[in-house]
Amino acid sequence: MSSPFEHEFLSSVKVHGGHLHRIKHYSPCNDCHMTFAIFVPQTPDGETKKMPLITYLSGLTCDDTNVSQKGNAFEACKERGVCFLMPDTSPRGHAKVAEDEDASWDFGLGAGFYVNATTEGYAKHYNMYTYVTEELKRVCESIPEIVERVDFTRESIMGHSMGGHGALTIALRNAGRYKSVSAFAPIANPSAEDCPWGQKAFKGYLKDEKDWKEHDATELVKKMEPGALKDATKGILIDQGDCDTFYKTQLHPERFFDAVEANTPNFIRYNIRDGYDHSYWFISTFMRDHIGFHAEAL
Amino acid sequence: MSSPFEHEFLSSVKVHGGHLHRIKHYSPCNDCHMTFAIFVPQTPDGETKKMPLITYLSGLTCDDTNVSQKGNAFEACKERGVCFLMPDTSPRGHAKVAEDEDASWDFGLGAGFYVNATTEGYAKHYNMYTYVTEELKRVCESIPEIVERVDFTRESIMGHSMGGHGALTIALRNAGRYKSVSAFAPIANPSAEDCPWGQKAFKGYLKDEKDWKEHDATELVKKMEPGALKDATKGILIDQGDCDTFYKTQLHPERFFDAVEANTPNFIRYNIRDGYDHSYWFISTFMRDHIGFHAEAL
Repeated sequence: MSSPFEHEFLSSVKVHGGHLHRIKHYSPCNDCHMTFAIFVPQTPDGETKKMPLITYLSGLTCDDTNVSQKGNAFEACKERGVCFLMPDTSPRGHAKVAEDEDASWDFGLGAGFYVNATTEGYAKHYNMYTYVTEELKRVCESIPEIVERVDFTRESIMGHSMGGHGALTIALRNAGRYKSVSAFAPIANPSAEDCPWGQKAFKGYLKDEKDWKEHDATELVKKMEPGALKDATKGILIDQGDCDTFYKTQLHPERFFDAVEANTPNFIRYNIRDGYDHSYWFISTFMRDHIGFHAEAL
Repeated sequence: MSSPFEHEFLSSVKVHGGHLHRIKHYSPCNDCHMTFAIFVPQTPDGETKKMPLITYLSGLTCDDTNVSQKGNAFEACKERGVCFLMPDTSPRGHAKVAEDEDASWDFGLGAGFYVNATTEGYAKHYNMYTYVTEELKRVCESIPEIVERVDFTRESIMGHSMGGHGALTIALRNAGRYKSVSAFAPIANPSAEDCPWGQKAFKGYLKDEKDWKEHDATELVKKMEPGALKDATKGILIDQGDCDTFYKTQLHPERFFDAVEANTPNFIRYNIRDGYDHSYWFISTFMRDHIGFHAEAL
């Protein structure tokens, strides 16, 4: 299993009338093996037509199993007839590339930040931007159980925390591709000095500081032509818990909200949720809303 | 924290509009500390009246966190206005009572089988029957956050695998107390020779073999007066996956079904589910049905 795109089903289990597949494959762009999961529901009403796809990008430390087990997504996906793709957050299993790669939970392993790294060592394996936007789709198109059920012309993207950063930046950088984008508690302004997670990641992965703003959702919106957001995607939804300990110290979602309002007024749906924290308890509560939001756009 | 019933909140988190509490307390009947969880939704429509309670008994190896994270219960509990109580499956943290206590995953720690042990060593700590049927209620009644929200006169009970065994036997032995009882893939005839889990547990916990049938759901029904099941509870629901590897080798739910049909025809709802296994993927799929079933009876 080392040529593009050989793959291996690690498991396939029935849940909510569909199947959850976990698939391992060789990733040329990350030069290591990667594992992802996808939930493929039964087609509604027994029809055989293909279903649209939501890609969910996870947060720091996570892999596909966090959202699949705790995210409360599949029942809603079944009801709305959408497939749900869950990539990993970083490469894993390759030879260690640098001393600091496994030294902390917010950088290196489990913390790929959805960029293509340009720093020494990391550039070889940390290419999660290309993986999510190009390679994973090609892998999926090579797997009959997926390509026969997914309509890749109808895609949306969402994520949590670091994955919310990934979803917003990827949607903004690929205008027109994703019908809708949503995030739970996204890292919304990672290049700012008061975002320690973003500072650490960008210093570690991107050697040229001018690249930082290309992976910062707030900065990407600021440089768009007025009104151009409507050409990028049909809608943006963000939920943020007000008891999230990272809300004011890392995430800064209001900066993104303000930038969007300045570009295209009344375009983003932004909800502050009373009493909720940063965890999957928060995500599981509002997942159904997000799946519904995307299903409407798809 | 060592007198009845001092307790400590390990965590309280907001989810689906309510709160999930994890509570540690000293358990006199098990002579050790125990941890349980309870989900208390917002009262529907902003009313202040108390809500009924479903107790969920987990299977081998589990504690409260398996079902709370993977069980898909809380959204349905919120919608139906019921509280959801999740005890542990065995004592933990006491001094080791026997050589075999931690030697395997299907006996001893994590595998209390909801009996009061009578064998040497185990009798001191393994009294999960008394814990679930009596003591845990008294603990809950001592905690304002619970007693102010739960109406303990309206109780139902359910469980998975070993916990399905626990739910069925506890409901049958306490006729009239539980309005309804349900189980996912229950160990339905544990005293039978072709149930290795039950044989191992009963030999280890119950020194007098005549006690075994008092903790065997199928045997309990067989000795009831014809029609007496209707006095024990309002309804019984069982779901069983047909790809469950333990279905024919450990569980034997049809024996319970046959015994119930012989006692009270057309009383039990018994569903064989095509393609489902023994895992929480199966449970999460049908949890909403079970919560709804209990809510109707409560």
